[in-house]
Amino acid sequence: MNEYPEKLEELLFLLRNLPGIGRRGAERLAMALLEWNQEKLSDLGKSIADLKINVVNCPVCGALTGKGESCRWCSDPRRDEKLLCVVESALQIYSIEKSNSYSGRYFVLGGKLSPLNGIGPDELRVKELDTLLEDGGVEEVILALGNDVEGRATAAFLSDHLKSRQLKITRPAAGLPAGANLSYADGATIAAALSGRTGC
Amino acid sequence: MNEYPEKLEELLFLLRNLPGIGRRGAERLAMALLEWNQEKLSDLGKSIADLKINVVNCPVCGALTGKGESCRWCSDPRRDEKLLCVVESALQIYSIEKSNSYSGRYFVLGGKLSPLNGIGPDELRVKELDTLLEDGGVEEVILALGNDVEGRATAAFLSDHLKSRQLKITRPAAGLPAGANLSYADGATIAAALSGRTGC
Repeated sequence: MNEYPEKLEELLFLLRNLPGIGRRGAERLAMALLEWNQEKLSDLGKSIADLKINVVNCPVCGALTGKGESCRWCSDPRRDEKLLCVVESALQIYSIEKSNSYSGRYFVLGGKLSPLNGIGPDELRVKELDTLLEDGGVEEVILALGNDVEGRATAAFLSDHLKSRQLKITRPAAGLPAGANLSYADGATIAAALSGRTGC
Repeated sequence: MNEYPEKLEELLFLLRNLPGIGRRGAERLAMALLEWNQEKLSDLGKSIADLKINVVNCPVCGALTGKGESCRWCSDPRRDEKLLCVVESALQIYSIEKSNSYSGRYFVLGGKLSPLNGIGPDELRVKELDTLLEDGGVEEVILALGNDVEGRATAAFLSDHLKSRQLKITRPAAGLPAGANLSYADGATIAAALSGRTGC
């Protein structure tokens, strides 16, 4: 016999699949939902059920976009077609956009190489990247795949994969984050910052 | 222009109505939902939209129960009909059940008196409580409404409201919680524990 009514247990079970939501958190969310009016519950239910119908990946670059729409970056003539920034997931595009420092286009790779998790080149959108680059126009590819082991391995793989093309291939600088105090920076970061030092 | 595709912004807006979910948390949940398969999304959407159709309040005591069902406490002949425990919300029944220390029935009051928030006796299920008590059989009412100002005020109000009936009216003891160290107990708790001291 379940503790809560059966249909409530079903909701708790589904909610616990969300990141950071355990048994207690799911109970808290479900109890809050029970206080909502029916209209709001229907809206949220429909919004979730239709999420992947209404929000899709741009067929060109993989960024999130509305159903049947070209994404706002691919369809914006002011974006620099000569620059292509490769990111792991569509979410990271928004982080880069917030920096107000990039005016080129994007390409979502769909993950990073991770042999232990069974993610090899075939699981990533490498063919789609090749297709996009075949169309020409791109002069520089920025491999913004994160500065962890998997990100660096993926960048190394892509750099090798793309070397036959007439492309400039770059990656974001590694070094001290903005506002960082040298006292609290780890050794690997200081080493990267020193080896990549620039003129003042 | 919204940052995310319109339908995703709509979902974020709805998710932010949940307790403890801010902009960042809603983004994290939405991004996780985008990774779910369509079947799971449909299940969760339907579960939320139909929540208040499938999970209702017991017409007698107000506890949570399935559609068209009497709640498991009202329908259990082993529960002691002579004891009635009045709680603020249906959720608290589960906390009391976990203690394995109560075998009577429950009544959900639906809130506590809170004049500042416009909650007076008419906003609580006082009439329903009267109806239940009219039916007879109850000999003791336990007012388990919490040991805060509003809980005590509500207990005082109900105690007065019920005094014309031939009922024993009690409330849970106030004192040191299980495992408590006197060094860390606050003054109000120690005062309550001392004034309510019992023989060893």
